[in-house]
Amino acid sequence: MTAQQASWIGVDWGTTNLRAFLVDASGNVIAELDSDRGMASLKPDEFENTLVTLIAPWLSDGVTIPVFACGMVGARQGWTEAKYRPVPCRLLRMSEFTRVATNDQRIDVYILPGLSQASPADVMRGEETQIAGFLASEPNYCGTVCLPGTHTKWVEIQDGVIGAFHTFMTGELFSLLSQHSILRHSIREGDEDPEAFMQAALAAADEPGSVALELFGLRAGSLLNDPQQQRVRPRLSGMVIGHEIGIASAFWAGSPIALIGAPELTSLYAKVLVAKGADIRIVDARMATLSGLAMAARQISAAAA
Amino acid sequence: MTAQQASWIGVDWGTTNLRAFLVDASGNVIAELDSDRGMASLKPDEFENTLVTLIAPWLSDGVTIPVFACGMVGARQGWTEAKYRPVPCRLLRMSEFTRVATNDQRIDVYILPGLSQASPADVMRGEETQIAGFLASEPNYCGTVCLPGTHTKWVEIQDGVIGAFHTFMTGELFSLLSQHSILRHSIREGDEDPEAFMQAALAAADEPGSVALELFGLRAGSLLNDPQQQRVRPRLSGMVIGHEIGIASAFWAGSPIALIGAPELTSLYAKVLVAKGADIRIVDARMATLSGLAMAARQISAAAA
Repeated sequence: MTAQQASWIGVDWGTTNLRAFLVDASGNVIAELDSDRGMASLKPDEFENTLVTLIAPWLSDGVTIPVFACGMVGARQGWTEAKYRPVPCRLLRMSEFTRVATNDQRIDVYILPGLSQASPADVMRGEETQIAGFLASEPNYCGTVCLPGTHTKWVEIQDGVIGAFHTFMTGELFSLLSQHSILRHSIREGDEDPEAFMQAALAAADEPGSVALELFGLRAGSLLNDPQQQRVRPRLSGMVIGHEIGIASAFWAGSPIALIGAPELTSLYAKVLVAKGADIRIVDARMATLSGLAMAARQISAAAA
Repeated sequence: MTAQQASWIGVDWGTTNLRAFLVDASGNVIAELDSDRGMASLKPDEFENTLVTLIAPWLSDGVTIPVFACGMVGARQGWTEAKYRPVPCRLLRMSEFTRVATNDQRIDVYILPGLSQASPADVMRGEETQIAGFLASEPNYCGTVCLPGTHTKWVEIQDGVIGAFHTFMTGELFSLLSQHSILRHSIREGDEDPEAFMQAALAAADEPGSVALELFGLRAGSLLNDPQQQRVRPRLSGMVIGHEIGIASAFWAGSPIALIGAPELTSLYAKVLVAKGADIRIVDARMATLSGLAMAARQISAAAA
C-alpha cells in the first residue's frame, strides 16, 4: 500500500455512510474502508477533514492523488453541490464533474453529478454511478435497472442511454413503520420467515390497494392471537416490497431487469420478481460502484495524458 | 364546583393525552381538564396517582365518586386490562365494565371495554365510546361511522348494532412521513393550501396506487423547482387521506356517513367525501365522548338505585 502503486481513490459517500477505495492503475483495490460519517452527520466545512483523516494512511506528502466521489456528498447540503444532469443522457461525462477546492494539496477531488428528471420530478445521487459501472460491461443494454434501497430506483435504459426513472420510498417506509409506528410493538427483530414474506409480497403485488387495508391488522392480529406466530416483520417487509413491485409493473413487465443493491434486500426483490415471471439478473453492488468510479478515473487520466 | 353538585367523572384516556370531565346529575359539565399524561407515558402503577393528582380539586374526603374511563387506559400496558368485546354487538353493557381496585377511597373506577374483530383482525379502544354517544341520539342509525385520527376507523352500523370495522394508519403515516422521512426537509409547518390538498386527495382517491408512485416526487419537486411553491404539506396530507378514502370506498359508497373526530381533521375528510358524492354529517367529538361516558354513568347509577 504505497504511493507508487496507488493511482486514484474512489468514495461512495451517502447519507449515512461512506465507503472509500484505494485503487491501482489496473483497477485493483489496494485498500478499502467503511465509515459512518455520512453526509447527514457533517457540515459543509467538515467534509475535507473527515475524508483526509479517514484516508490519511493512503496519502503521501508531495504527491497529489485524484479522488472521485459519488452520492449525497454532492447534494446542496453536502460538501460542494454537484448539479444534476437531466435525463435522457449518457453517463459520466468529465466536463460535468464538479471539482472541489481543497486546502490539502495531497488530494484533487471530483464529485460526480446525480441525475434529475423534470416530469414527474425525480432525482438520484450515487445510483447513476452504479448504473454506469453496470453499463461499462454491457454498453448496449436495453431494459430496466432496479436499485433496491432506502429509496428504490427503477430506471429505463435503451442502448446505454438513461431514460425515465422512478423512485419509491419503500425502504424508508419499512424503517419508519417497523421502528417508529405502533407496529414496532409487534415486531421481533431478526424474525425471518421466507414463506410469510412471499405470501404477503405476492398478495400485495397482485392487489397493491390491500396494503393500506391490512397494515393495522398486523398489530391487531398480534393483540388478539399468539404474538409469537404473527411474523409481523417478514409480512410487513413483504407488504411494502410487493406493493412497490405491483405499482412499478410498468417499469418491469416485459423487460429484462438488472438488480443492483445490498445482497439481502436485492434477493427479496429477486424472489418476488421471479415469482411474477420477470427476467432478472443480480449485479454486485460494490463492483458496480467501483467500476463506475473507475470510468470517472479513466476519463480524468485520459484528459491529463 | 362542590361535591354536592358533582355526580360522576368521565375520563377519555388515550395514548398521548387524557381529558377529564366533572359532571352533575343532569349531565352538565361542571369542570374539565386536559393533560399530556397519556397511557404511553405511564407505568401501570402510576395511573391512580396521576389521575388523583389531576382531579384532586374535584374530590372530597369521605365521598366516593364514580369514574368512567375509556381508551388506551384499558390496554394490556394500561392501568388494568379491559377485555375487548367482539363485534357484532350493541354497545356499553355494564356487566362488561372493568372495575379497578384503587387505594384512594374517594374514587370508584370503571374502565369501558374496547371492541375487537376476529377477521380481518382489528381492535379499537375509545372510539366505541364516541360511537355509543352518537347512537344515544340516533339509536336506530344505519350507515357508516368514520372516526378520523392517528388510526382512523370506519365502522358499519345496522340498527344500533356495531358490525364490521376497519382501521387505517393514515394519521400515523402522515406524522411519520412529514416529521421523520426525507420529506420533512420539504415540509413547511403551518403550510395550508386547500386547493393543493383537494387536488392531491381527489387524484389519490381515484387512483390509490398513485400515492406510492408520487411520494418521493414531493421531495424531488422541491429540489428541482421553487421550494416555496411546492405545498408539500397539504399535498402529502391530501395524498394519504385520499388514498384511504379511495381504498375504503366499500365502507362508504352508498351509505350515510357520520364523521366524529377533531374538527380540523374531520373537515378534511368531509371535503373529500362530499366531492366524491358521499352523504355526510359531522358529529362533535367532545360531545360524543361525553355522551358515551354518560351512558355508562346512567347504567351504574340505575344498577345502584
